[in-house]
Amino acid sequence: MTDFFKGIPAITYEGPDSDNDFAFRHYNPEEVVTGKPMKDHLRFAAAYWHSFAWSGGDPFGGQTFDRPWFSETMDAAKLKADVAFEMFQILGVPYFCFHDADVRPEGATFAESTKNLEQIVDIFAEKIDATGVKLLWGTANLFSHRRFMSGAATNPDPDVFAYSAATIKTCMDATIKLGGENYVLWGGREGYETLLNTDMGRERQQAGRMLQMVVDYKHKTGFKGAILIEPKPQEPTKHQYDYDVATVYGFLKDFGLEDEVQVNIEQGHAILAGHTFEHELALARELGIFGSIDMNRNDYQSGWDTDQFPNNVPEMTLAYYEVLRAGGFTTGGTNFDAKLRRQSLDAEDLILAHVGGMDACAAGLKAAAAMLEDGKLEAARDARYAGWDAAQGQDLLTKATLETCFDNVLRDNISPEPCSGRQERLENLVNRYL
Amino acid sequence: MTDFFKGIPAITYEGPDSDNDFAFRHYNPEEVVTGKPMKDHLRFAAAYWHSFAWSGGDPFGGQTFDRPWFSETMDAAKLKADVAFEMFQILGVPYFCFHDADVRPEGATFAESTKNLEQIVDIFAEKIDATGVKLLWGTANLFSHRRFMSGAATNPDPDVFAYSAATIKTCMDATIKLGGENYVLWGGREGYETLLNTDMGRERQQAGRMLQMVVDYKHKTGFKGAILIEPKPQEPTKHQYDYDVATVYGFLKDFGLEDEVQVNIEQGHAILAGHTFEHELALARELGIFGSIDMNRNDYQSGWDTDQFPNNVPEMTLAYYEVLRAGGFTTGGTNFDAKLRRQSLDAEDLILAHVGGMDACAAGLKAAAAMLEDGKLEAARDARYAGWDAAQGQDLLTKATLETCFDNVLRDNISPEPCSGRQERLENLVNRYL
Amino acid sequence: MTDFFKGIPAITYEGPDSDNDFAFRHYNPEEVVTGKPMKDHLRFAAAYWHSFAWSGGDPFGGQTFDRPWFSETMDAAKLKADVAFEMFQILGVPYFCFHDADVRPEGATFAESTKNLEQIVDIFAEKIDATGVKLLWGTANLFSHRRFMSGAATNPDPDVFAYSAATIKTCMDATIKLGGENYVLWGGREGYETLLNTDMGRERQQAGRMLQMVVDYKHKTGFKGAILIEPKPQEPTKHQYDYDVATVYGFLKDFGLEDEVQVNIEQGHAILAGHTFEHELALARELGIFGSIDMNRNDYQSGWDTDQFPNNVPEMTLAYYEVLRAGGFTTGGTNFDAKLRRQSLDAEDLILAHVGGMDACAAGLKAAAAMLEDGKLEAARDARYAGWDAAQGQDLLTKATLETCFDNVLRDNISPEPCSGRQERLENLVNRYL
Amino acid sequence: MTDFFKGIPAITYEGPDSDNDFAFRHYNPEEVVTGKPMKDHLRFAAAYWHSFAWSGGDPFGGQTFDRPWFSETMDAAKLKADVAFEMFQILGVPYFCFHDADVRPEGATFAESTKNLEQIVDIFAEKIDATGVKLLWGTANLFSHRRFMSGAATNPDPDVFAYSAATIKTCMDATIKLGGENYVLWGGREGYETLLNTDMGRERQQAGRMLQMVVDYKHKTGFKGAILIEPKPQEPTKHQYDYDVATVYGFLKDFGLEDEVQVNIEQGHAILAGHTFEHELALARELGIFGSIDMNRNDYQSGWDTDQFPNNVPEMTLAYYEVLRAGGFTTGGTNFDAKLRRQSLDAEDLILAHVGGMDACAAGLKAAAAMLEDGKLEAARDARYAGWDAAQGQDLLTKATLETCFDNVLRDNISPEPCSGRQERLENLVNRYL
Ligand SMILES: [Co+2]
Ligand SMILES: [Co+2]
Ligand SMILES: [Co+2]
Ligand SMILES: [Co+2]
Ligand SMILES: [Co+2]
Ligand SMILES: [Co+2]
Ligand SMILES: [Co+2]
Ligand SMILES: [Co+2]
Repeated sequence: MTDFFKGIPAITYEGPDSDNDFAFRHYNPEEVVTGKPMKDHLRFAAAYWHSFAWSGGDPFGGQTFDRPWFSETMDAAKLKADVAFEMFQILGVPYFCFHDADVRPEGATFAESTKNLEQIVDIFAEKIDATGVKLLWGTANLFSHRRFMSGAATNPDPDVFAYSAATIKTCMDATIKLGGENYVLWGGREGYETLLNTDMGRERQQAGRMLQMVVDYKHKTGFKGAILIEPKPQEPTKHQYDYDVATVYGFLKDFGLEDEVQVNIEQGHAILAGHTFEHELALARELGIFGSIDMNRNDYQSGWDTDQFPNNVPEMTLAYYEVLRAGGFTTGGTNFDAKLRRQSLDAEDLILAHVGGMDACAAGLKAAAAMLEDGKLEAARDARYAGWDAAQGQDLLTKATLETCFDNVLRDNISPEPCSGRQERLENLVNRYL
Repeated sequence: MTDFFKGIPAITYEGPDSDNDFAFRHYNPEEVVTGKPMKDHLRFAAAYWHSFAWSGGDPFGGQTFDRPWFSETMDAAKLKADVAFEMFQILGVPYFCFHDADVRPEGATFAESTKNLEQIVDIFAEKIDATGVKLLWGTANLFSHRRFMSGAATNPDPDVFAYSAATIKTCMDATIKLGGENYVLWGGREGYETLLNTDMGRERQQAGRMLQMVVDYKHKTGFKGAILIEPKPQEPTKHQYDYDVATVYGFLKDFGLEDEVQVNIEQGHAILAGHTFEHELALARELGIFGSIDMNRNDYQSGWDTDQFPNNVPEMTLAYYEVLRAGGFTTGGTNFDAKLRRQSLDAEDLILAHVGGMDACAAGLKAAAAMLEDGKLEAARDARYAGWDAAQGQDLLTKATLETCFDNVLRDNISPEPCSGRQERLENLVNRYL
Repeated sequence: MTDFFKGIPAITYEGPDSDNDFAFRHYNPEEVVTGKPMKDHLRFAAAYWHSFAWSGGDPFGGQTFDRPWFSETMDAAKLKADVAFEMFQILGVPYFCFHDADVRPEGATFAESTKNLEQIVDIFAEKIDATGVKLLWGTANLFSHRRFMSGAATNPDPDVFAYSAATIKTCMDATIKLGGENYVLWGGREGYETLLNTDMGRERQQAGRMLQMVVDYKHKTGFKGAILIEPKPQEPTKHQYDYDVATVYGFLKDFGLEDEVQVNIEQGHAILAGHTFEHELALARELGIFGSIDMNRNDYQSGWDTDQFPNNVPEMTLAYYEVLRAGGFTTGGTNFDAKLRRQSLDAEDLILAHVGGMDACAAGLKAAAAMLEDGKLEAARDARYAGWDAAQGQDLLTKATLETCFDNVLRDNISPEPCSGRQERLENLVNRYL
Repeated sequence: MTDFFKGIPAITYEGPDSDNDFAFRHYNPEEVVTGKPMKDHLRFAAAYWHSFAWSGGDPFGGQTFDRPWFSETMDAAKLKADVAFEMFQILGVPYFCFHDADVRPEGATFAESTKNLEQIVDIFAEKIDATGVKLLWGTANLFSHRRFMSGAATNPDPDVFAYSAATIKTCMDATIKLGGENYVLWGGREGYETLLNTDMGRERQQAGRMLQMVVDYKHKTGFKGAILIEPKPQEPTKHQYDYDVATVYGFLKDFGLEDEVQVNIEQGHAILAGHTFEHELALARELGIFGSIDMNRNDYQSGWDTDQFPNNVPEMTLAYYEVLRAGGFTTGGTNFDAKLRRQSLDAEDLILAHVGGMDACAAGLKAAAAMLEDGKLEAARDARYAGWDAAQGQDLLTKATLETCFDNVLRDNISPEPCSGRQERLENLVNRYL
């Protein structure tokens, strides 16, 4: 036991009336909600990077956090791992996620970085065994080091492509070794700062090629987890190629990978792309590429990827409603890609931020499940489109032509009368479950 | 001759030093720029809707323009047509574009609306003969009338789908009859206000079906023009399905229509989707779906589709640069989807707004052509990616695997050194052509 | 009784477990919350314009609503008044608000418009007597008619200034006659579309002059209500002078009117200005100019003034918390400056939208009151600043100079250690009251 | 001479036809434009922080620049100073600007930091003597160090206030010693992350107090330069108190400092606040608080303070037009608060970015001057408001009341007819000078 969280108890469920900061008021892991325990619906994961690797800097200021593991040594990395798994257990999160760069010191060479990673992976394997905490997904950090400043797969320099591919291999190997359930690709530098120096056609081919190599390696190794792309429109890059779910879908179709790859959807990235979180979730479901979620909360107004801990239960309810309509998670889960505000310096802040986020998710899930079970919202939706299930609708979708439509409208003097969309009434209905 | 433009002369080229408001300073139609006359590069079109059908309203105020043709009668429609063709000739624009609802009064029935349209089309045919002004594209207004309030193809009511299909047939027929070079689909109401009452999966199928019917009708009629979708993220609808070029591409791929349909890209819609105009143009080119452009200028800050007349030559230069890199327009052209500010009440304003816009386009085209001919920017771009043309780069794109990359990086201790992206230097270079 | 709301019952409180759409689940008018009945805290008002004068148009489509009173006649205006007061009674809102243009047909002359208004005011007076519904505020519509297209007080044409002043007089007279508790000025056209044709200095003087005249008239007539400016950054005008609370404050100070005029703060306008609603409320309180609120909900992402009915209780809780911290409303209240979505066609939609909004306000108020009574949040805030209440802090605020600070820091080797801002912990705390 | 800029020549004017990257095409320092040399209009300054202290990090990546002076020692600080003054001379900029933290290593104590600063100031004094380069303004960095994470003047901890005051004293002393022409205050951390832990009223008083102390010290020391506040709405802080020019004005009025303090307006900050640069400039001029400018270019779409080098001449023309209308700079100037893109690694990039920016400013200034001398735009503006110079307009501004306006409108049946705002025509006119 380290003493980082000294005095902080393991968090347990005490119910809505508890006024204990260090307790869950909604998240009751074993409580059954529509057929399975909440923990199996939510499949919470903590993110190594924000909680243990980020030091509190922002564009106008440096480190604010003062953590004993902030140095680029293996000893520090081990201490960090100890503290991380202590947090996972305090919170009772069943999963965690990591990038290579979060967990091991950068080596002087690729070989050394790889060796460092392997050592930490061995330590993780022991901790996983000891604690039962599992790996939701692994990923490669191909954006922080200056070698990636102009892209990883989409770099103008083929050496960077090769370096990135090699790095991905080490991270997929680590993920496989640790029994990870997914492997994630987020292309933070896959995009451009200015079109003036960018060959978008080439870069698109490079990105497609890298993804194919990843899929090939998955099959070769027999990895059973999902390969997930995490869309984001911008930040750090001015334009990122994986802009949003619809863009990723077009890319997958272009390279014939739509059955091989799914998406990891982040609330904040949805917002930055001009969408709601629930839009991205619903679209992924309809396109058959829904995989997992990065739960957080984005400032609507700043344009920055704020990665705040989520707390708005009505909004989260709409998100989990779409997750439930998608059939829930299979390999995916709820990863807190969320970081403390840089003024939240204390170990207690780190725990409480997760407690609040987990509780808000649980409250949202319960409301969503009740709404779905109750069936009123779905009944209203079905009724609105009922005409399409009738013969005329089916004919339009299968047999009609512009000419037959023209003939019918003319013959029957069709003049459609609009009927109410009932938005406010449905919004009131949703509020009833909160 | 009507007297609407009384006293306004035909606009001719007088050169950069002219201080005549009613003259072109840059647009010299027959002047050859990289191999063909400016008029054949730019292929200007005026938009019927903004110039002749819009009355100056905004969300907080009604009509400000006082036009003698503002009434829903055939006589008014004829007067409007007279004035419109007078404007086309004053400006010397070779093309125009229209929606059915711009040019004919709404009838009491579909039959009457169709008859009204046919009468106006006959008048247009005569005017086209008489003036040489041609039709760049036609389209159907499936968004203004309340029957379309919940969508056209994507309406929950199949009758609206049928009505829309019938309307599209009449507009494609009109386009074909008038020798139009493209047919455009803009789905202003194809989207949703709230997910709560929306079945996104159904609506997507409906939209795909309608597009297939349009393509079928094109082939059946032997129409040689292009079918174009105009992307837009929102406004009037909160979320529109044809969000941007990348989204449309995914949709086309999903329905197997990527070789049948191209895009009509509007500056303002690019901005609203979080992109630059040149991004959307470049992407469409790389995806092989570049068709035509709606030229205008959007306020960057308001979030409204402001459809202002363009005037920022440096920005327009970047747009025409991408058009030229795409090989220029084939069936497409430069349509001014731009409207007067609602305080610009006078006939003179209508002419001068177009004069300024045409001149800015011409200046942008000339700068873009000079930049492309000079070759410095393309040489810099090519040099940046030269490694990909060498053997190593080609191998990576065709033969490499994650494992071979890993082995090579390890063996050769590859440690890529970043090199400057030179963005400011390239921005300076662009300014040299302005 | 008209038959517009036929079949719709008066809305009563049934408690949180009710599944009756036509009942309040949270708003229990007589229920006492921190010392007074909810109705006296909330002081709900319905807005005549959105509910009875708006016809459902948007920038790409016309009227969707089909109301029997949509014609510019006095008979229609009387029917509209009948329906409006029926709605006020069905909902049990104690107040309403109106512009002149909402309630009377525009006359052919100013005299006729004035006469029309006076007739309606007489009718309102009777209805107020009969129903007990009261006037929260009146205001003049100086933005819809084309005469105001370039501004009202800030118009380049002095005649428009005079016309506007004359109109304001009629609206203040109406407000006074009806016992209105406030008079509101919203300068929808006071601003500019382009700086190129705008004399900002002159327009500022004109605006200041008009406000002085309004204040003078208030004193001359003995009107006891508050004069309120409603800030908004833009829409319809590209830039509006009354951008936000801070801007209005500077303007009031410049003209020496900061003790005469307060602000009516709208949620949607706060959002459009880049603020939260609670920011604007807190700032107005600190500046001593808090007056009243326009409750609604703005889309965070579109940039349009969407004026939706509010439904996000956590956000509304933060707003009412600031209202309570300001001591609650005196002359002000909660006006629903909110409109139906244009697809919400039915009379039922109009009622239910208000029911949902009122319920959400009530839920927010109750949570805010509990949070304030509990005192934990205020205790945390006070503790954070405790140093400023001690001698050192008081000295800094009254006696210190840069030099004394320099000397002290040097002498005592002051090196401040930051302490946690505890944001997530406080966010969790807020969620406990919801 | 260091060898950092080895091989880079001093930049001289070669005229528009030069194709030398390392030459000015527009900036000809001694060329007279409306009565004085361009250098005296523009008064260019280079910013120490972006060019010499920033290492290329962004929210997702670390240092990209590799500069020999990147270490926290006095030797490195001296090397940095050498290189900086070499750049000033290569570019021929007459001024520079700095924060304390840009130029000296942070000491272990306040005393040591102060001593470090004083040593560098002595070096600067020698260099200023030797080169003729002057100090446009100095300022204190009260935002980067973690001690300022919760604010400087507005910190909940009075010790931080004291530390900030002491630091300001050292920076004002440095500015005075170096003959600086202004002293700037930018409150990057004066604001809040969340209202929940913020006492806005207290913080406002603290900020007012600090500003008063600064003004007092200016008078006490006899400093003749201007005290300037630099407004910014957000970043790094979620909400900054000095939001924009209008907000700062209200603050100054509240504390009676509107005659003591002016504003330093940054293009990027104007954009972030939802304004145009020219709006902020024009407003400051009308309010009598225009001081100086930070020239750069902000991405319109990202919401980040991108601080790019400016290059859009049409936009910059509108900015310098407002500067000229304000009478030009007195103590102020054109400071390039602009940084290289993080991929622009080379010393050449640093020079060329400034060259391009200076040239764009010069082109904008020349166009603005021509437009102002020509007088057409001002004549159009004056004509639009001519009615206000006549007797009626003057009466309205001085004698009228709501009642006299009402009487006159009624008596004369005033019914104002709107006239065209001619926006597009004026936009065309502006383009004529470019
Ligand atoms: Co994420
Ligand atoms: Co994020
Ligand atoms: Co368009
Ligand atoms: Co548009
Ligand atoms: Co309002
Ligand atoms: Co509003
Ligand atoms: Co600045
Ligand atoms: Co900046």
